[in-house]
Amino acid sequence: MQFNKSLENIKVYEAGKPIELVVREFGIAPKDVVKLASNENPLGTNPKVAEAICKNAKNAHLYPDDSMFELKESLANRFGVEDKNIIIGAGSDQILEFISRAKLNENSKALMSRVTFAMYSIYALQQGASIIRTSDYKHNSKEFISIIREHKPEVVYICTPNNPTGDATKPEDVFEIIEASDPNSLIVIDGAYMEYAIAKDSSYEITPKELLKYPNVIYLGTFSKAYGLGGMRVGYGIANSEIIKALMKMRPPFNITTLSLASAIVANSDEDFLNRSLELHTRELPRYEEYAKRHSFEFIDSYTNFITWILPKELNSSKVANALLRIGVIVRDLKSYEMNALRITVGTPKQNDRLFKVMSEVLG
Amino acid sequence: MQFNKSLENIKVYEAGKPIELVVREFGIAPKDVVKLASNENPLGTNPKVAEAICKNAKNAHLYPDDSMFELKESLANRFGVEDKNIIIGAGSDQILEFISRAKLNENSKALMSRVTFAMYSIYALQQGASIIRTSDYKHNSKEFISIIREHKPEVVYICTPNNPTGDATKPEDVFEIIEASDPNSLIVIDGAYMEYAIAKDSSYEITPKELLKYPNVIYLGTFSKAYGLGGMRVGYGIANSEIIKALMKMRPPFNITTLSLASAIVANSDEDFLNRSLELHTRELPRYEEYAKRHSFEFIDSYTNFITWILPKELNSSKVANALLRIGVIVRDLKSYEMNALRITVGTPKQNDRLFKVMSEVLG
Repeated sequence: MQFNKSLENIKVYEAGKPIELVVREFGIAPKDVVKLASNENPLGTNPKVAEAICKNAKNAHLYPDDSMFELKESLANRFGVEDKNIIIGAGSDQILEFISRAKLNENSKALMSRVTFAMYSIYALQQGASIIRTSDYKHNSKEFISIIREHKPEVVYICTPNNPTGDATKPEDVFEIIEASDPNSLIVIDGAYMEYAIAKDSSYEITPKELLKYPNVIYLGTFSKAYGLGGMRVGYGIANSEIIKALMKMRPPFNITTLSLASAIVANSDEDFLNRSLELHTRELPRYEEYAKRHSFEFIDSYTNFITWILPKELNSSKVANALLRIGVIVRDLKSYEMNALRITVGTPKQNDRLFKVMSEVLG
Repeated sequence: MQFNKSLENIKVYEAGKPIELVVREFGIAPKDVVKLASNENPLGTNPKVAEAICKNAKNAHLYPDDSMFELKESLANRFGVEDKNIIIGAGSDQILEFISRAKLNENSKALMSRVTFAMYSIYALQQGASIIRTSDYKHNSKEFISIIREHKPEVVYICTPNNPTGDATKPEDVFEIIEASDPNSLIVIDGAYMEYAIAKDSSYEITPKELLKYPNVIYLGTFSKAYGLGGMRVGYGIANSEIIKALMKMRPPFNITTLSLASAIVANSDEDFLNRSLELHTRELPRYEEYAKRHSFEFIDSYTNFITWILPKELNSSKVANALLRIGVIVRDLKSYEMNALRITVGTPKQNDRLFKVMSEVLG
């Protein structure tokens, strides 16, 4: 059986290991597993969302309202935009997929940071496009602009704050890149962790509304992180209506579940849960910085709900991650990103206590 | 902004109208709306599933086990196949998408019935492929084989029972098509409604296991219909492991939600709910046949959970569907499939009473 040629180049995304796997492979009780690998919200599910899920469970047999009218209205109000500027995806991941399929083919190029969200390149490779990466993981506007001028990439990915590194890019640098871009380059501003950046330093805020004046920019947001709905798969793209119309052609019907739709509507209007998530994170993040300093690790100043520890040469990040895994603590090794580093989700105080304890055991 | 050329040909799927829309547009109370348009299970959500959803609602912030180990094991047991033969999708829809993207491009052809599930052509057109349709909506093996020999289509879709017509194809005809196919043609046996066909006449049964011996066949099944999980978006593909490996490259991580995974695991092991769904349907379907006979409509003998009424020339299916809609009863007009027909989901006794009553009012 022959398949499309682009399949030859595709790597499969390596997801954070689930608790179920650690239970199966190492015989550890689920309650003893601490997962700090997938940047899930340590506050757990918003109780109001859990209530809405229970209330709507009896509707699991019914397809969702495929117009997603109520969720779009709610997002339109939150961001000061119109329904026609919004597309909903199964996570912002799926919007990345729509973008790739609408814009990229074997003759096109996609520009991204050296170390950034893996799905950008996976979706681009599925289309057979070429990937261009900057030399640095930080989004350096000069380097982006120089590559844009030379290569005219069809899609440019700016992940701010950046995953899996945690650093953020100043709006003035982002706007400089946008202003220098070709009108046919679609600039993707991926703000999956934007709520955390704003909580830390509001000068990093980029709003979808201020991007709407550009005909070639799309902003992506998600309910998976600060809104605590990782397992429900809901994200959104906000752009001018011409871009939205094109992406809607790639959207399969019923692309989020009935319960995901109900969950996102409730989550989007609950500022209290959002604030509590951000407060918990703000209290706990410094503990990871202090631990790193005490052990003479480098760390990347984080604008997200995780922190990236760059390990010294004598410590192999894969070995450390594996040793932690065997005792039930899951973190993300960044070896596949060519960094000797660990990406660790900032958890609850108790989870973080455990992480520091077992980390110290592993370091010996 | 330029987009890929294939976007020019894409029609957007016309989903069955949701209850929410009828409430918004016609001011009808939700409890007074009867939706018989999307082949949802009239028994509602399986109570055991609703319970599992409530119990797992607190995990909505956690990504699902992306290996889907437990669900695959459960399906493997049900069908007598191995985990490596199974891929899970957000509905069997998503597996259709993976197939299209793995096999089709601007130089390829996709063969399907004249009237069949709309997503086959939509996903094929997204890849820029050419569509070949048979002259009849019924899957005539002679015609399929003659087109296969002449055109060597890369993908052949056999929907049995067929949606939106409701007829089924005999296994011997399906196997004749498979045996005559080119080894490079992927034959898709879409059994989304297979449980209803088997309940009516077990001689129509095609099992995924008996298809495994063919290196170029994939069977698709879903939890959306007889298992009552339409809103949760879970389907599966079963094929030899080479096909599954290729399709897995197109699968985005976390492509079903945490609650969808939990729901499907429970639903897959509950034969009682399945049997009750099939019994309800078996009792109610004849009422639609009798109504049609009484009003001298043609109908297509149904092997699914819906029935297709072919209206006489003097009745316009779009006008009838619209008249029903205004009084709160949603059915599917098949005008866009070039049939003057209505596809109506067989509902609960009460829903069916209402349908017959308002239908008679509309017919005057």
